[in-house]
Amino acid sequence: MLLDAKAAGLFPIAPTPFHADGRIDEASVETLIARYLAAGATGVTVLGIMGEAPKLEPEESLAITQRFIAGFGKLPVIVGVSAPGLAAMRALSHAVMAKGAAGVMIAPPRTLRTDDQIVSYYAQAVEEIGRDIPFVIQDYPLTLSVQMTPKVIRQIVQDNPSCVMLKHEDWPGLEKISTLRGFQRDGSLRPISILTGNGGLFLDFEMERGADGAMTGYAFPEMLADVVRLQKAGRRDEAHDLFDAHLPLMRYEQQQGLGLAVRKYVMMRRGFIACDAQRKPGSALSAAAKAEVEFLLARLARSDRRAADLPKAA
Amino acid sequence: MLLDAKAAGLFPIAPTPFHADGRIDEASVETLIARYLAAGATGVTVLGIMGEAPKLEPEESLAITQRFIAGFGKLPVIVGVSAPGLAAMRALSHAVMAKGAAGVMIAPPRTLRTDDQIVSYYAQAVEEIGRDIPFVIQDYPLTLSVQMTPKVIRQIVQDNPSCVMLKHEDWPGLEKISTLRGFQRDGSLRPISILTGNGGLFLDFEMERGADGAMTGYAFPEMLADVVRLQKAGRRDEAHDLFDAHLPLMRYEQQQGLGLAVRKYVMMRRGFIACDAQRKPGSALSAAAKAEVEFLLARLARSDRRAADLPKAA
Amino acid sequence: MLLDAKAAGLFPIAPTPFHADGRIDEASVETLIARYLAAGATGVTVLGIMGEAPKLEPEESLAITQRFIAGFGKLPVIVGVSAPGLAAMRALSHAVMAKGAAGVMIAPPRTLRTDDQIVSYYAQAVEEIGRDIPFVIQDYPLTLSVQMTPKVIRQIVQDNPSCVMLKHEDWPGLEKISTLRGFQRDGSLRPISILTGNGGLFLDFEMERGADGAMTGYAFPEMLADVVRLQKAGRRDEAHDLFDAHLPLMRYEQQQGLGLAVRKYVMMRRGFIACDAQRKPGSALSAAAKAEVEFLLARLARSDRRAADLPKAA
Amino acid sequence: MLLDAKAAGLFPIAPTPFHADGRIDEASVETLIARYLAAGATGVTVLGIMGEAPKLEPEESLAITQRFIAGFGKLPVIVGVSAPGLAAMRALSHAVMAKGAAGVMIAPPRTLRTDDQIVSYYAQAVEEIGRDIPFVIQDYPLTLSVQMTPKVIRQIVQDNPSCVMLKHEDWPGLEKISTLRGFQRDGSLRPISILTGNGGLFLDFEMERGADGAMTGYAFPEMLADVVRLQKAGRRDEAHDLFDAHLPLMRYEQQQGLGLAVRKYVMMRRGFIACDAQRKPGSALSAAAKAEVEFLLARLARSDRRAADLPKAA
Repeated sequence: MLLDAKAAGLFPIAPTPFHADGRIDEASVETLIARYLAAGATGVTVLGIMGEAPKLEPEESLAITQRFIAGFGKLPVIVGVSAPGLAAMRALSHAVMAKGAAGVMIAPPRTLRTDDQIVSYYAQAVEEIGRDIPFVIQDYPLTLSVQMTPKVIRQIVQDNPSCVMLKHEDWPGLEKISTLRGFQRDGSLRPISILTGNGGLFLDFEMERGADGAMTGYAFPEMLADVVRLQKAGRRDEAHDLFDAHLPLMRYEQQQGLGLAVRKYVMMRRGFIACDAQRKPGSALSAAAKAEVEFLLARLARSDRRAADLPKAA
Repeated sequence: MLLDAKAAGLFPIAPTPFHADGRIDEASVETLIARYLAAGATGVTVLGIMGEAPKLEPEESLAITQRFIAGFGKLPVIVGVSAPGLAAMRALSHAVMAKGAAGVMIAPPRTLRTDDQIVSYYAQAVEEIGRDIPFVIQDYPLTLSVQMTPKVIRQIVQDNPSCVMLKHEDWPGLEKISTLRGFQRDGSLRPISILTGNGGLFLDFEMERGADGAMTGYAFPEMLADVVRLQKAGRRDEAHDLFDAHLPLMRYEQQQGLGLAVRKYVMMRRGFIACDAQRKPGSALSAAAKAEVEFLLARLARSDRRAADLPKAA
Repeated sequence: MLLDAKAAGLFPIAPTPFHADGRIDEASVETLIARYLAAGATGVTVLGIMGEAPKLEPEESLAITQRFIAGFGKLPVIVGVSAPGLAAMRALSHAVMAKGAAGVMIAPPRTLRTDDQIVSYYAQAVEEIGRDIPFVIQDYPLTLSVQMTPKVIRQIVQDNPSCVMLKHEDWPGLEKISTLRGFQRDGSLRPISILTGNGGLFLDFEMERGADGAMTGYAFPEMLADVVRLQKAGRRDEAHDLFDAHLPLMRYEQQQGLGLAVRKYVMMRRGFIACDAQRKPGSALSAAAKAEVEFLLARLARSDRRAADLPKAA
Repeated sequence: MLLDAKAAGLFPIAPTPFHADGRIDEASVETLIARYLAAGATGVTVLGIMGEAPKLEPEESLAITQRFIAGFGKLPVIVGVSAPGLAAMRALSHAVMAKGAAGVMIAPPRTLRTDDQIVSYYAQAVEEIGRDIPFVIQDYPLTLSVQMTPKVIRQIVQDNPSCVMLKHEDWPGLEKISTLRGFQRDGSLRPISILTGNGGLFLDFEMERGADGAMTGYAFPEMLADVVRLQKAGRRDEAHDLFDAHLPLMRYEQQQGLGLAVRKYVMMRRGFIACDAQRKPGSALSAAAKAEVEFLLARLARSDRRAADLPKAA
């Protein structure tokens, strides 16, 4: 099944589980898939920035993608294919689509500056991978240092029929969602799916501005799925109550460079993965940071049972 | 009274109040001072990035500084003097110190890259303004795009006896505080005051890592002062409870480029300033954003009375 | 006389001459003016990046500008007014225009990224300084890290009737000149003057692509004026012969961060200024670098008598 | 034969020759090798930035490397292995060393900022590829936006015995060479080879400052080899005369983003490669630019016969 502009819900950004010695932990991949499905994921994104993709060998990348495709069954798997060269992007795109991926995600290279450069880049990328592969624009200026205006995004969408989704993680970005949805209403932009990232830090209001769901990797994907569901059901206060209870931890997880260590640590504590190791070079939590995370988990447990009764930390 | 390394507590980053037509609103400056003092401020910082300093005429900058100095009495007033040229920095530093400022704050120019360039820049700045003016290092990589390691900060402090404070707003930055305090313990760094910024987003843990207080402009300075006080008193849970109640709004205020509009809007709603206008060019809140802020205020009012019973919005 | 779109020829970027102790050397300002006029300058630009403008006190900036205005008589003096804040830009613009400046030059702040941000910035700047002050766009991505496409420049010119000139120093930039002149031919851009910078490194071909002249500070302004004149007269080979003879030294002068030290050293050797000191913080030539410059001057002297018979270096 | 710190002379940065349709032109690879050897190359560097490496499939990269290794016989072939992920870097390094490469070249990722980050990155890279593979530091701030001080370079060299060469293309960079050679004299740095890049624009003086040779891709490699040889023989004026004759074209070739199009065009005109096509996405010369290059070639032919009697352009 190919990805289309109706995609919605929760697409977790999957981390790659490793053993302490850096080998891929395949059993944990299976556990992770099961937990994501139980959490209400409607799809998944692999080989993203937070998936430590650049540290994987090509065969490993393909193998992990295949496991997720097998595990997610009819649910769509999006694969991050951003690469410094278009040849690598094409090769990976073709390989994963052949394995059953639903689409690919493409981030702009960090050297792009002008509007025209950004639009041209996506045109070239599409020419390279082919017009039949659905793709997602990743708009993440904080990390990628490329700024796309709503007009530029509209241009890319209108120029390239295979563009079906925006991964929105501009910051601040609420007005951007409103502007893009306004473009759809005035007929200048065809419908696209908008899933939001940024660690979920603005998911509460992003849903109210018109997002279709979340695409991020916060260590409590259930909460993300719940907030999306509650907001769609018009249960606004419940959505915010749940969101606010998680915000202290979410905020803690959303630390550039350190966030993945927090995320993996919590996922390990929750049994999603067996080990929180990152493949080298990676970051790790200090003892003080671990204690802070435990403190946040304990506080969260008061309002969300899913944070309670975690097995003792090693 | 000159600033020294014992400075602690809350130094709000003061916004500059304007009338709708862009003139400085002097009455609101007085109100703001009274509210800051009532909130428990132990000092104040003017002409910072969030004070719209670059939009002020030189005479305006001086006049505002004088009002704060008069209003704060014996409490220290720190003045942001960062400028592209050292001549302007020297002139402003000398002018405000002559008026009674306690010290100045210096941010690194965004073109600096290597450790040596940063260390040299502070040496030149000190040579220019003179060795008798206490100064604060502003460490704010997210906005200034200059990255200072703990070792570089130590070097600047050790090289320049007039350096008495670090405004810490690295992100993530908790380990940086721990490292600097570790340098003090091992004797390689003399004591300095560390006040933290970043809109307060990590103040809860920053205090636990060794910060002396907050230097930021969140629209509820009382909360910042309370968290600092509670943490110093060892009332950790109370500190976090209060902090967490404010986090949804704090997070909303901490949006690059838009944050000042949120901050001024809330301060206007709270009667700290009469009008939330920014001098041009400035940002403004959309109707949707205002509604979101009102929603957050209403939710906050459930646990913090200071957010309740606000006069009706215009 | 106000600057208009017919400006052409040579507008040297004037350095600011200092005594060894950092005071402005007013006598050298007069010498410099005389030499520029003798060299064939048709105007001059003061307070540019290479004029050490950020190191000057406001009164010094005005005083220097006044001297150039007096010295250049009816020839236009352009003043660099770029500043981090619009208030400072407006104040300086009004002050220098009141003294008789012909126009101002405005560089984009280095934080601008998208096309819209750049266009908006110039709109705000013009609103701030007023629509009656002729201004020059400075397009210098290498130093300013802002990239303006030809379309963006056209937009600024068309939106703002007071825009009369482009200081072109994109690199590479030959096609940009051709594109802009093409816009004029197809009627989508009104005529503007294009003077080129970049230390003169591409002046030979820039003239052939449609530039109106040079605005740069190479230490042999006579050569720049000659190349402009020869190219306009269709004496292409002579223009290139002269240009090529100077290229080794021009290339040596065009070193980021060090270039001004080379330029001032050569100007001192040529008697344009009495001392090559920069106000602190500045760069200085090592003994090895001075020997290299002397070697280049000696080689140049074989084909250009103006490099010969220089008084002995101190 | 492994690369060692005695490497000197000319290591051209080899372009990758393509047919007009984007396939690799294997015959031209052979011609190129023959021409480089005839020009006096003492080694060669493949898969560099100017080799369009990111556009190649992994098998293509290996195949090209193998051809160069075969063609260069006992002369060392250096392979650019910079990659966003260490896994890819390790895989490519091991693959090319197994084929007989002499060493690898590693550029720092453009996100590195502080001295410690740069030093750590090289430590990680060496740990990843193994301590037995000789490697070259690529120091190219203009393109890579990472600034390494001489002290940082020294640290990397001293920390990693397998570091044998610096590809120096800082700009300006003459003092850096002098400083590094000074470190060697004072015993704080072990000997390393320094080959210089930057399109050759400062090769004349770089040799005098202590460089061992050139590693760049200017379309007249014979000139580079000659300047290196003449300078080593103490024939300074001859070296500069030859260099200066080429400088107008060298300067034209050294245009960011456009330079490779100039280089390939001239190499095609000289018969080094059959076609000047770049694999997509690539730049191409306008008619005006081609005419300018032809003009420069014609002028060069007056003093260097190697630019004369070129076959007619198609």
